[in-house]
Amino acid sequence: MIRIGILGYGNLGRGIEAAITHNADMELVAVFTRRNPETVKIMTEGVKVYSVDCIADFVEKIDVMILCGGSATDLPAQTKEYVKYFNVVDSFDTHANIPAHFAAVNEAAQASGKIGIISVGWDPGMFSLNRLYANCILPDGNDYTFWGKGVSQGHSDAIRRIEGVQDAKQYTIPVESALESVRNGENPQLTTRQKHERECFVVAKEGADLAKIENEIKTMPNYFADYNTTVHFISQEELNEKHSKMAHGGFVFRTGTTGMNNENKHVIEYRLTLDSNPEFTASVLVAYARAAYKMSGEGMKGCKTVFDIAPAYLSPLSGDEIRAHLL
Amino acid sequence: MIRIGILGYGNLGRGIEAAITHNADMELVAVFTRRNPETVKIMTEGVKVYSVDCIADFVEKIDVMILCGGSATDLPAQTKEYVKYFNVVDSFDTHANIPAHFAAVNEAAQASGKIGIISVGWDPGMFSLNRLYANCILPDGNDYTFWGKGVSQGHSDAIRRIEGVQDAKQYTIPVESALESVRNGENPQLTTRQKHERECFVVAKEGADLAKIENEIKTMPNYFADYNTTVHFISQEELNEKHSKMAHGGFVFRTGTTGMNNENKHVIEYRLTLDSNPEFTASVLVAYARAAYKMSGEGMKGCKTVFDIAPAYLSPLSGDEIRAHLL
Repeated sequence: MIRIGILGYGNLGRGIEAAITHNADMELVAVFTRRNPETVKIMTEGVKVYSVDCIADFVEKIDVMILCGGSATDLPAQTKEYVKYFNVVDSFDTHANIPAHFAAVNEAAQASGKIGIISVGWDPGMFSLNRLYANCILPDGNDYTFWGKGVSQGHSDAIRRIEGVQDAKQYTIPVESALESVRNGENPQLTTRQKHERECFVVAKEGADLAKIENEIKTMPNYFADYNTTVHFISQEELNEKHSKMAHGGFVFRTGTTGMNNENKHVIEYRLTLDSNPEFTASVLVAYARAAYKMSGEGMKGCKTVFDIAPAYLSPLSGDEIRAHLL
Repeated sequence: MIRIGILGYGNLGRGIEAAITHNADMELVAVFTRRNPETVKIMTEGVKVYSVDCIADFVEKIDVMILCGGSATDLPAQTKEYVKYFNVVDSFDTHANIPAHFAAVNEAAQASGKIGIISVGWDPGMFSLNRLYANCILPDGNDYTFWGKGVSQGHSDAIRRIEGVQDAKQYTIPVESALESVRNGENPQLTTRQKHERECFVVAKEGADLAKIENEIKTMPNYFADYNTTVHFISQEELNEKHSKMAHGGFVFRTGTTGMNNENKHVIEYRLTLDSNPEFTASVLVAYARAAYKMSGEGMKGCKTVFDIAPAYLSPLSGDEIRAHLL
């Protein structure tokens, strides 16, 4: 059994807990929190919640610690710290800061002899893998990534900061005609507006100026001004009832040419349609936790990304089994 | 520069030759053939064609030999033989015989200290990778693979063997409603007939009994009897003009559930739409030739499949570059 610890018990941590129940070769040993552990109730019977201050007591009891903090401030501090004691996996997703995060985690992991796998999930993660494979196969071509339909937390938060807004959810939606054009190999040059549209469900405070709110949303720089945006005012009850799910997804395309004169076109498409963004992300993290365990067992160490990990390490099956059944 | 040799100059060999021109870190050193080399004309200026009998003279001159023979009789003999002298890549695609092929190539490659990568292409190859990744992420779920629209050589040959048939092309086509059902997460149980249909373009010999030919096709066991099959009789000119392309493609789906009570559904879809089956296959082989070169340079040896190879080995870019631009 691979003994897993979870640090941080929000949506992602709960997703990890659920994903472990789908993997017969794993067991949850403990959940660690910065909150008062007595206030954190988890779903797995017989497993306890501990203060993060106790985490060092578990060095011999946990094979892989899955770090479920946020990318803004948690993971930049946590991953390089806890890889001193454990093999770790994180979902660091601030693309621009990945090189610095990699360097810091690698230094600590090389020193401790542990494996630290960073930026695991679906973007970065499975989308990155598909970009890499497809770029290597079709060196002459174009990349397209679309996100959605799914909730953007950042955009929802931006709407909530507008005066008169009580609550809001924002969906990012790929433009269907853009998807079709890419899928047909037309290699379109797409503006921001042509790629995605934004749909907002807004609960206004009593007496608020709806036209003013709608205008403020639609003209908000960076967040909405460059997009076709639709605003719906609904009740808090309807928001809670119809818009509390965490569905997401997206598309990665590579379109390119082969032949002595680029005479043949090819389209590679990877598509995710996810009922639960955090549970799917967690499922990827858990598969890479298995890889961390197996690679560490072979004496490997240092910081790794999905690019550095042979796919077979993700599987609970033997090489013979995957060659016979999946190749 | 990675120095590439090609053994076998059919559609796949020509595809390799073209793919090398799309990869700036590679050069074609020589093409080897079992035919009289003087009868084989290639497209790359300054590169010569040699008899396969001269291949051992190139041991120091070629980094990776790409084997472009067929899976029925060529590769079972060639891959284990030439991995004694070269790092090799093949496209062995007889799924049932992969374990035996792996064992034979591995024994020879372990002895010679070379790398032999087998079963590279899109199925097996990219489809296998997608099956493996998706199975590891969603352990509770279902796999679906669809092929086409594309020409099946085996089915075209089967039609050509019917009395009165002069020439034929057969397209395998996924059933659109089955794709939609899978994509919607309905987890359908699909019969052979419900997954694919077959469309045949047949040139009959003068005076042949068309109704008899059509009936023989539609009732042919294994090949057609279990499918909805459409037969069109056309002229040789029309067949040559409209049906000589080698387009192909297909879909790999994994649909599965997450959550403590399987309450959330997810769909992973990988889709290829290819103008040229051999050129795309060749493009995958060339990327794995780079991996063979890099892995051999690090002292690795033995038989490998796409499951055993970290994605970064396929790329001409450094780890820093792929982390910065593709993660």
